[in-house]
Amino acid sequence: MNKLNKDTKILIVGLGLIGGSYAEALTDKGYEVGAVARRKETIDYALEKGLIAHGTTKVDKEYVSKFDIIVFALYPKIFVEWIRENQEYIKDGAILTDVTGVKTSIVYDIQAMLKEGIEFIGAHPMAGKEVYGVENSDKRIFENANYIVTPTDKNTKNAIDVCKELGYELGFKTVTELSPESHDEMIGFLSQLTHCIAVSLMCCKESERLVDYTGDSFRDLTRIAKINDAMWSELFMLNREELLSQMELFSEKFTELKETLKNGDTEKMREMMRISTERRKYFDKR
Amino acid sequence: MNKLNKDTKILIVGLGLIGGSYAEALTDKGYEVGAVARRKETIDYALEKGLIAHGTTKVDKEYVSKFDIIVFALYPKIFVEWIRENQEYIKDGAILTDVTGVKTSIVYDIQAMLKEGIEFIGAHPMAGKEVYGVENSDKRIFENANYIVTPTDKNTKNAIDVCKELGYELGFKTVTELSPESHDEMIGFLSQLTHCIAVSLMCCKESERLVDYTGDSFRDLTRIAKINDAMWSELFMLNREELLSQMELFSEKFTELKETLKNGDTEKMREMMRISTERRKYFDKR
Repeated sequence: MNKLNKDTKILIVGLGLIGGSYAEALTDKGYEVGAVARRKETIDYALEKGLIAHGTTKVDKEYVSKFDIIVFALYPKIFVEWIRENQEYIKDGAILTDVTGVKTSIVYDIQAMLKEGIEFIGAHPMAGKEVYGVENSDKRIFENANYIVTPTDKNTKNAIDVCKELGYELGFKTVTELSPESHDEMIGFLSQLTHCIAVSLMCCKESERLVDYTGDSFRDLTRIAKINDAMWSELFMLNREELLSQMELFSEKFTELKETLKNGDTEKMREMMRISTERRKYFDKR
Repeated sequence: MNKLNKDTKILIVGLGLIGGSYAEALTDKGYEVGAVARRKETIDYALEKGLIAHGTTKVDKEYVSKFDIIVFALYPKIFVEWIRENQEYIKDGAILTDVTGVKTSIVYDIQAMLKEGIEFIGAHPMAGKEVYGVENSDKRIFENANYIVTPTDKNTKNAIDVCKELGYELGFKTVTELSPESHDEMIGFLSQLTHCIAVSLMCCKESERLVDYTGDSFRDLTRIAKINDAMWSELFMLNREELLSQMELFSEKFTELKETLKNGDTEKMREMMRISTERRKYFDKR
């Protein structure tokens, strides 16, 4: 396929929070959006709310072969299997993409097993909420968010362009390109490490009685401590080496700060605070 | 003095963000609020905005002796000196309180040096913003916040009651009582440790290019990484032993999580995530 146009048919496989929000955003832009979900209730809900034009719980050639673009909004291991089992139904020239938070450990495997004539290009919409399910779909979560496309040598310029255009059509503020490896390093630091920190912090103490003494700092820092353990443990394991090295880096800096306190080295402590303050300003600018 | 009433005169020493917000809240409640500040511009600004009824940059008996309640909204070391130098001006029966984030290392010292007839009782308004100065005063920062009173054996029931009432008059949602030691343990964990984490995280990497890839988790977690290095290094040093042990506790849990990842022990990793998720729910309820 060439660039996106209003005849482009888009299939969303997996209608959770992200899949449902993709469906809403793309339907509202005028695309014909279909969906595959495991439960009939999910499809019925999405039809009733006008998120999709049609959908099915049964994967077959007649349905799948309609689509020019297929977005996988499923857990990584599940959708890799889905592709293996059902790629025979996908039409020639279709572009496949995903929404997964890790890339290196899945993108190359998928590209290596794909049949001729179809192309997979990884993407990571950096948006979400601490709730799940199609009922919580909300295309506004993309508004101030970043969308990262992670092409490899196997991807064509056309597919990269289509995937980026999809990011803009979904309503993301920034669309960027990174190699799968750079993506995983970045996300290991920015997203996975922060979740590790929040989880570790909540594991420190029974916290019911802490609520009356809590300021915003603790609340903000642990917002992401409500975490889908099935999904995140899978993501962590799929990015294990990278995440371990980001955790190591953080431990070093945290220990460094602890030492300044232990030694009463206020000058060095203040220097770390000044670096922190300077760097944090970048994140206010946009 | 007995309970607060509309004749109660309140002096705010130090008109920064917190002092200014106290002044605004108490003036709006109908109290006569005065202020001591270092710079004349600060007093002029507060007068112009109607935050205070009167104010001075010159500390003398004529002014200070008017007041029934004196709130110190200064850095801890500075206000302890202030009390030492100026307590002779304070009228009999006055109640002194503060807004400092550490208690054990200052409350007992102040109580030990106070002249007869006046009483100091510590308080910690758990509210703030990442901006400074009287120009940013805003009494709304107290609305959903907690206020902690930290009495010792030396405090009278009357002073405790007055200090709590002050918390309610300021508009805090919750007013609680803790010993200075429990306060410092709590705050070491909930506030100081979280600031240490945010600072350490920002010290890990040059971050300008990270902005395009950042989701909300990193942004929320590092909001407090913009930090007043003079104030926080002082607070950290004043609560050194307690903060060190909270940092140690966090390091242990973080290392525990890192080990689950290193060993591929997904069951234990998921258990930590489930504990985290359960505990974080308390903070949503109110």
